[in-house]
Amino acid sequence: MVHLGVDLGGTTIKIGLVDDEGKLLRSLAIPTALPRSAQAICQDVVEAAGRLLEAEHLTWEQVGDLGAGAPGTVDPNRGVVLYATNLDWWDFPLKEELARRLPRPLPVYVQNDANVAAVGEYLAGSAKGSASVVVLTIGTGMGSGIILNRRMLGGHYCGGGEFGHMVIAQGGRLCSCGRKGCLEAYASATGLTNLTREEMERAPASLMHSIAKKQGKVSARTAFDAMKAGDAAGSRVVDLFLDYLACGIVNIINALQPELICLGGGVSKEGDTLLLPLREKVSREIYGGSHLPSTRLQICTLGNDAGMIGAALLGRMQELRD
Amino acid sequence: MVHLGVDLGGTTIKIGLVDDEGKLLRSLAIPTALPRSAQAICQDVVEAAGRLLEAEHLTWEQVGDLGAGAPGTVDPNRGVVLYATNLDWWDFPLKEELARRLPRPLPVYVQNDANVAAVGEYLAGSAKGSASVVVLTIGTGMGSGIILNRRMLGGHYCGGGEFGHMVIAQGGRLCSCGRKGCLEAYASATGLTNLTREEMERAPASLMHSIAKKQGKVSARTAFDAMKAGDAAGSRVVDLFLDYLACGIVNIINALQPELICLGGGVSKEGDTLLLPLREKVSREIYGGSHLPSTRLQICTLGNDAGMIGAALLGRMQELRD
Repeated sequence: MVHLGVDLGGTTIKIGLVDDEGKLLRSLAIPTALPRSAQAICQDVVEAAGRLLEAEHLTWEQVGDLGAGAPGTVDPNRGVVLYATNLDWWDFPLKEELARRLPRPLPVYVQNDANVAAVGEYLAGSAKGSASVVVLTIGTGMGSGIILNRRMLGGHYCGGGEFGHMVIAQGGRLCSCGRKGCLEAYASATGLTNLTREEMERAPASLMHSIAKKQGKVSARTAFDAMKAGDAAGSRVVDLFLDYLACGIVNIINALQPELICLGGGVSKEGDTLLLPLREKVSREIYGGSHLPSTRLQICTLGNDAGMIGAALLGRMQELRD
Repeated sequence: MVHLGVDLGGTTIKIGLVDDEGKLLRSLAIPTALPRSAQAICQDVVEAAGRLLEAEHLTWEQVGDLGAGAPGTVDPNRGVVLYATNLDWWDFPLKEELARRLPRPLPVYVQNDANVAAVGEYLAGSAKGSASVVVLTIGTGMGSGIILNRRMLGGHYCGGGEFGHMVIAQGGRLCSCGRKGCLEAYASATGLTNLTREEMERAPASLMHSIAKKQGKVSARTAFDAMKAGDAAGSRVVDLFLDYLACGIVNIINALQPELICLGGGVSKEGDTLLLPLREKVSREIYGGSHLPSTRLQICTLGNDAGMIGAALLGRMQELRD
């Protein structure tokens, strides 16, 4: 049996064909092409899935189930997207609208996209074999997915799992959510880019200026690249960014102490440059000190495929829960 | 059947006799009388439990099980207190030391004290019948217990459930845990007392001065009492305290969105004076806005008995989990 996984984004929709072990066999991407109706998008997704099967010389008879991750607040039990600003969806019955377009009846699962990425890492990636994990996705924003005791914890009203919107600096920077001082406002790629810009103003001789010029813009990579080239101002930015990120991670450990916290998203590509100093900052601050064993920090391994793979494995996650 | 619940504190040990419904039938308190050995304390607890049964004309044959809540980091699976500073216990096998002193073999359960209070509220108090709850105990410090999907979430290494040690103001007030800006440093009784003292210095004409004089000291009640008497400086303190508390509560909702958050501890005795403005502050800040249903805020109902009752019900909690 193969499993179809759909990663619905505001710009691109990725569809993947995944085997029982969570290996991605083949994938394709189609434009979301907003504005258009949610129904038209569902139609497009099912047709693209058909082409994907054909390309692998498979038929719908060999598909076990289909899962989809959507941005925003998703009710996985009813299969409804309650609220997704980037898609402009309100109370959209995604599960039903996908299911009725399939050429044969199949189980369909839907879930929030950050939760779906966590499912991917938990069942087939960096957290495979662990009892509990929080996956933090450090991208333009900051998403998170919580899996404890083999269960996705998405909140009683499907609005939980938003560690990016935990205030760590009360009265601080305005966040996209309206609060001031959220972790996302400091420790996302956007937050890092803002910290970089501010330090560049203070340090006109920093290498960051020429690096940004070469890269065409100031980005989340600018400070890391400058630091690797020995630039002190770049190091300061990275250190400050890591302080904020460590603060949020210690908060998560003190609250939930999962076996593992896995970092994904664009910034996580820095690998050990990010991970090693972060582990040190975190171990200095956790409650009860470092004499007792605690949560391990890792980098996610599925990269941009986590959404497709996790979506394809939503059915398996459901089985674990039952 | 009756159940014995032990609430181990640094000053007092409370022992309660509880029926199957979680009703406290009778209780007594003995001094912890530190410094003395952990073994001597266990001996004392079991003897006191015997006197408690006698007073209710019951025998050990009618006791179903015994549960104990201890401060610090507790491993409920092994029954060991890993680390409890106020008792000066390290790796103490509390379950075994209690069990071998009982006049007949009984199941013995141990758990962290904040978690035990949450079990009490969940099975017999303010959260009875709800699917998930976070209990925040606003006392000298700030404890918390998390129950989701009928399970106590104490962390993979038994060190979780510490929402009091979530930084909400990075670089802020020094907390007892060594971090700066923890929720506990602002929104506990100690935090509130500190906010009160600071405002009293700025406001020499405030009613808080005469109220504190009458009460013999500045306490967590001073500002609330002054506010009720129409004092503007007292109102400012309460408002600031509620801002911090709301910030922490919104963080918890954004992360876990339990069905219920219940507030216990001394400060929760303020009841609606605390609850009503807090609900309003929280609803303004939650992620996704207030157009979707979200976590309800309540006051705990078991008061100081939550520890004994929760301890006595640890066996039932275990059954739910299995």
